[in-house]
Amino acid sequence: MAESTTRTTRRTSVTGPLDGPEAAVILERVRASVDPELRAAVDSLPGSMRRIARYHFGWEHADGTPAAGNAGKAIRPALVLTAAAALGGPPARASAVPAAVAVELVHNFTLLHDDLMDRDTTRRHRPTAWTVFGDADAILAGDALQALALRLLAQDTNPASAAAAARLADCVVELCAGQHADTAMEKRGPGDVALDDVLAMAEAKTGALLGCACALGALYAGAADEDVAALDAFGREAGLAFQLIDDVIGIWGDPSHTGKPAGADLAARKKSLPVVAALTSGGPAAAELAALYAVPYDGEDEEGVARTALAVERAGGRDWAQAQAADRMARAMQELARAVPDPEEAGGLLSLAEFVTRRSN
Amino acid sequence: MAESTTRTTRRTSVTGPLDGPEAAVILERVRASVDPELRAAVDSLPGSMRRIARYHFGWEHADGTPAAGNAGKAIRPALVLTAAAALGGPPARASAVPAAVAVELVHNFTLLHDDLMDRDTTRRHRPTAWTVFGDADAILAGDALQALALRLLAQDTNPASAAAAARLADCVVELCAGQHADTAMEKRGPGDVALDDVLAMAEAKTGALLGCACALGALYAGAADEDVAALDAFGREAGLAFQLIDDVIGIWGDPSHTGKPAGADLAARKKSLPVVAALTSGGPAAAELAALYAVPYDGEDEEGVARTALAVERAGGRDWAQAQAADRMARAMQELARAVPDPEEAGGLLSLAEFVTRRSN
Repeated sequence: MAESTTRTTRRTSVTGPLDGPEAAVILERVRASVDPELRAAVDSLPGSMRRIARYHFGWEHADGTPAAGNAGKAIRPALVLTAAAALGGPPARASAVPAAVAVELVHNFTLLHDDLMDRDTTRRHRPTAWTVFGDADAILAGDALQALALRLLAQDTNPASAAAAARLADCVVELCAGQHADTAMEKRGPGDVALDDVLAMAEAKTGALLGCACALGALYAGAADEDVAALDAFGREAGLAFQLIDDVIGIWGDPSHTGKPAGADLAARKKSLPVVAALTSGGPAAAELAALYAVPYDGEDEEGVARTALAVERAGGRDWAQAQAADRMARAMQELARAVPDPEEAGGLLSLAEFVTRRSN
Repeated sequence: MAESTTRTTRRTSVTGPLDGPEAAVILERVRASVDPELRAAVDSLPGSMRRIARYHFGWEHADGTPAAGNAGKAIRPALVLTAAAALGGPPARASAVPAAVAVELVHNFTLLHDDLMDRDTTRRHRPTAWTVFGDADAILAGDALQALALRLLAQDTNPASAAAAARLADCVVELCAGQHADTAMEKRGPGDVALDDVLAMAEAKTGALLGCACALGALYAGAADEDVAALDAFGREAGLAFQLIDDVIGIWGDPSHTGKPAGADLAARKKSLPVVAALTSGGPAAAELAALYAVPYDGEDEEGVARTALAVERAGGRDWAQAQAADRMARAMQELARAVPDPEEAGGLLSLAEFVTRRSN
């Protein structure tokens, strides 16, 4: 699925020599310019908060000894810097580093809090911070990272920094509302969730920060309001495409790639996008799915998971999600072309959008 | 105790005709200018977050119907506006309203999170937000209020707003470290807590935001760096005096005034400032107190609470706290006189400092 969407998008957008630098190259360059500033920001925290943050970022083990470090792929900082470069060239890219760091800090603040709320025990193959330091410290470290993000922008003398801070703060509010909607939705019965509500939730929870990252890059490039808005929409649509594909992988993904057992989302009765599309499609397969979802998974019933996956597929959930993902990527490309008409200048952002929607783990 | 300190401070500072407007009058005026902006900020939140915040502020019942509203005394916004007025007159006071609202939002964000971490069930005579909406929503609403606070300053065009935002974000980090230290300290044995550590914790947890409020007012008045620093120190010292008096009241306060059973802090084995001063004083009373604190309170033993209070008193904890509070208030007055030499201009801040340290509930 991930591959087929990627191929679709490739066809509808640029190909071959117009492709920007490979995403992996971009991400490596971004890490090189963002990591020192990110570490300096985290190291400015008082000892107690610094320790939790450094553990969360993968720079330290729980006992404070240095760790190899796997702080995630830095997609969001890459979107900030690549958007800045696309609209303002290398000087804008260089100036936007504080915004890239701020976005990464906000992302990690929400991870610390979301892991706790969702009681997720693993993040980037390590125990989550709340399992190591307790609930209170995970809350406090998240609070401190949000403050750090907004302080970084408040201290930045770039003329775009105030608008960037206001936009990032707005995005935090949207992320909170999205996480609330997600939690509230999971508590409802399978028949009580509308597809539009899940799409709106996914946009707030996943699309908003990707859009904000692109918008901040545009702001630091001194772009016009409509270009900032177009880049925000580009990031949001790509984010929704990513979420749709991630949900498909959560059902039909190869466990050896995803690292999760097959159908884990179905076993957890998660109301992911393909599931809700299937539940709301009408017909016998939707009714069968609703009946399966009405009782909790019994823990061992692999055949039941397979039947559930088949019901989602037969009710059209898989096809719908694939078509939606392709549609969202097409819209993302339109928005990108509006703000950055030159395909060469748009190449980096395009590569990143394809990278996030292509990844299978 | 509260009264004797107040009397001491009155003697060491201004009296009679030089007293500024009464604190109650200031607080009422502040509510009138801050409340509309505070409500507008909260009402800009998405529905789910708005509902929790409006409940927390006392403007709504849990079912969303309007409530009479008891959103607290607005001490912190009053410090912002009164500091601005003291250093920059009425125009500075008027311009500082966004900063006053931001400080009040930060204060309430920390209340939402601290109540959850401390599992406190009552705030301003109502069930705390986490007991009504659950842990996740209390975390999210707190996160959203922090974002709202920093967004307000980011959107403010006043030349002081960026420095104010940076300072407020720094203060949030300090508040987080203070809350962490408090939680960590309560887990330690009674012999493992140093008096300096409790004082540092109280300064971070209570003094920092009162100091920050005063500093933000000074920034909006366009004050020189040393006056901003002096007003920060004034707020911090007054905050520590308040905490010392609050701790004394928590042990020896009249239950009909405090609304808490006599000795509630002792029964909870809280390592408050007078208790740690007593524990670290050496001598037989300190040893007796350590022995009493080494076993949990059995729930009914009123005589045991009285013995514990007596041990704190005999070990010098009460006298130390009273002397410290008086000393802190004297230092606060010195800092205030440094930044605002004219006693008439300093009158409002003086009244507020006396108000916070005088209150007995």
